[in-house]
Amino acid sequence: MLPSSHKWFTEPCMEAGVAASWTIEKHLAREVTDYQTIDIYQTSHWGNLMVIDGFVMLTARDNFLYHEMLTHPALFSHESPARVVVIGGGDCGTLREVLAHRNVRHCTQVEIDEQVTRLSEKFFPELCERNDDKRAELVFDDGLAYVRNLPPGSVDVIIVDSTDPIGPAEGLFGPDFVADCFAALSDGGIMVQQSESPLIHQKLIAGVRGNMQQAGFETIRTLGFPQPCYPSGWWSATQARKGGSLEPADPARFEASGITTRYFNPGVHAGALATQIP
Amino acid sequence: MLPSSHKWFTEPCMEAGVAASWTIEKHLAREVTDYQTIDIYQTSHWGNLMVIDGFVMLTARDNFLYHEMLTHPALFSHESPARVVVIGGGDCGTLREVLAHRNVRHCTQVEIDEQVTRLSEKFFPELCERNDDKRAELVFDDGLAYVRNLPPGSVDVIIVDSTDPIGPAEGLFGPDFVADCFAALSDGGIMVQQSESPLIHQKLIAGVRGNMQQAGFETIRTLGFPQPCYPSGWWSATQARKGGSLEPADPARFEASGITTRYFNPGVHAGALATQIP
Repeated sequence: MLPSSHKWFTEPCMEAGVAASWTIEKHLAREVTDYQTIDIYQTSHWGNLMVIDGFVMLTARDNFLYHEMLTHPALFSHESPARVVVIGGGDCGTLREVLAHRNVRHCTQVEIDEQVTRLSEKFFPELCERNDDKRAELVFDDGLAYVRNLPPGSVDVIIVDSTDPIGPAEGLFGPDFVADCFAALSDGGIMVQQSESPLIHQKLIAGVRGNMQQAGFETIRTLGFPQPCYPSGWWSATQARKGGSLEPADPARFEASGITTRYFNPGVHAGALATQIP
Repeated sequence: MLPSSHKWFTEPCMEAGVAASWTIEKHLAREVTDYQTIDIYQTSHWGNLMVIDGFVMLTARDNFLYHEMLTHPALFSHESPARVVVIGGGDCGTLREVLAHRNVRHCTQVEIDEQVTRLSEKFFPELCERNDDKRAELVFDDGLAYVRNLPPGSVDVIIVDSTDPIGPAEGLFGPDFVADCFAALSDGGIMVQQSESPLIHQKLIAGVRGNMQQAGFETIRTLGFPQPCYPSGWWSATQARKGGSLEPADPARFEASGITTRYFNPGVHAGALATQIP
């Protein structure tokens, strides 16, 4: 039983027989868009909370884990990630981490639902602090079509920062999209896709890796990291490289980058690359 | 709201404004001992679940993370861990991992509440499969007094596998116990203590580290790892060494050990050692 002394937001995850709940101070906003329903809550201990169609997307307190681990391992494994595309990621937290890299010349964020970004600007302003960077481009369109239409070899890193593989994001977990990413990447280019929990979504991870292999990627690695607000609290990103290996960040390059992080560092990166799916 | 279609066991963690719930098939056992109340549930997706005084101790499905990470980093950082003491750990999962090391000659588990072990033998037999190893000694007594009475320099590794720092385990987080561990350890000996969540128990971790520093330990490291069944899903173990450094497992030694793991490996070990407390 949840203590009735508090108001709670609960996300059940029936496929894993668990539920996670947060104590809520206030329901701040609800937007019903063409794609989904977005709710924003003020929690007691986790700052603001974004929920889409009943699934927790992020909290102010713990999103740094996910955003750092989706971004920095890929960008530090690439020798010169100049052109980056983020598919999804409408909260702009991934965009912010990408633009922390001085060698990135251009980053396009392609979010299908503009309201995700508008609500993030209002309720997660810290994630949007680089939206006005002159290297940032915000596109509100279908990520599937966007990647399909990219000139071959035109992008160094593609980060797929999607919701769960149901609803608008379903196609992002399909083989056609992954093949389009492969075509759009330059030689040595890296694709990284959020790939759910190593403990409860092993079939999905196998599917993501299978798509990457089928598309022709040479090196595929699944990196694990903690993410309290997602089911099981243990999450993953799967990386694929179009030629070349996926190595942990060089400590000297990380140091010289001047990038400050709360979780990522070259040692953590090496550890994440060593993740075995149990 | 938790879906009323199922029965749930819920652990609220009000200090962090969260709760975690599991769908339950059956309440298998309850023992009210001199120390605490122990419940065993059969869950739908996580195997059996042990709860003490309302706090989740372990599930059959995810305890491997905690037990591997409490044990193997310490034992592989020590050149020859022959004599090991486990304080607490009544479910015997830590004892099992310790005895996977062929160079361990003797391991004493000192659990205050015999019923924890008796229930584990019945409901988590896989954790107890090395209880009859001739190197294993099961003592049911007060861990504080046991360590206080150990001959100086008589132990190579002490693993503090305790419940939360309230109730019977409170003293295990105090400076006197840590000083007694220091005295009992041989030169180069390692103490490791479960130290709660890097995200929500930062003060506790600072206290654990402070005790270790005060006791005279030369090297102190806090290792992070996922642990779905504990609050935030991100947990830690803090290690302290009496002279010498704490280095990741040598891959050749790990390979030669023949030890099979589902999470731990030398790369993961290196990553855990690189944990920064955010």
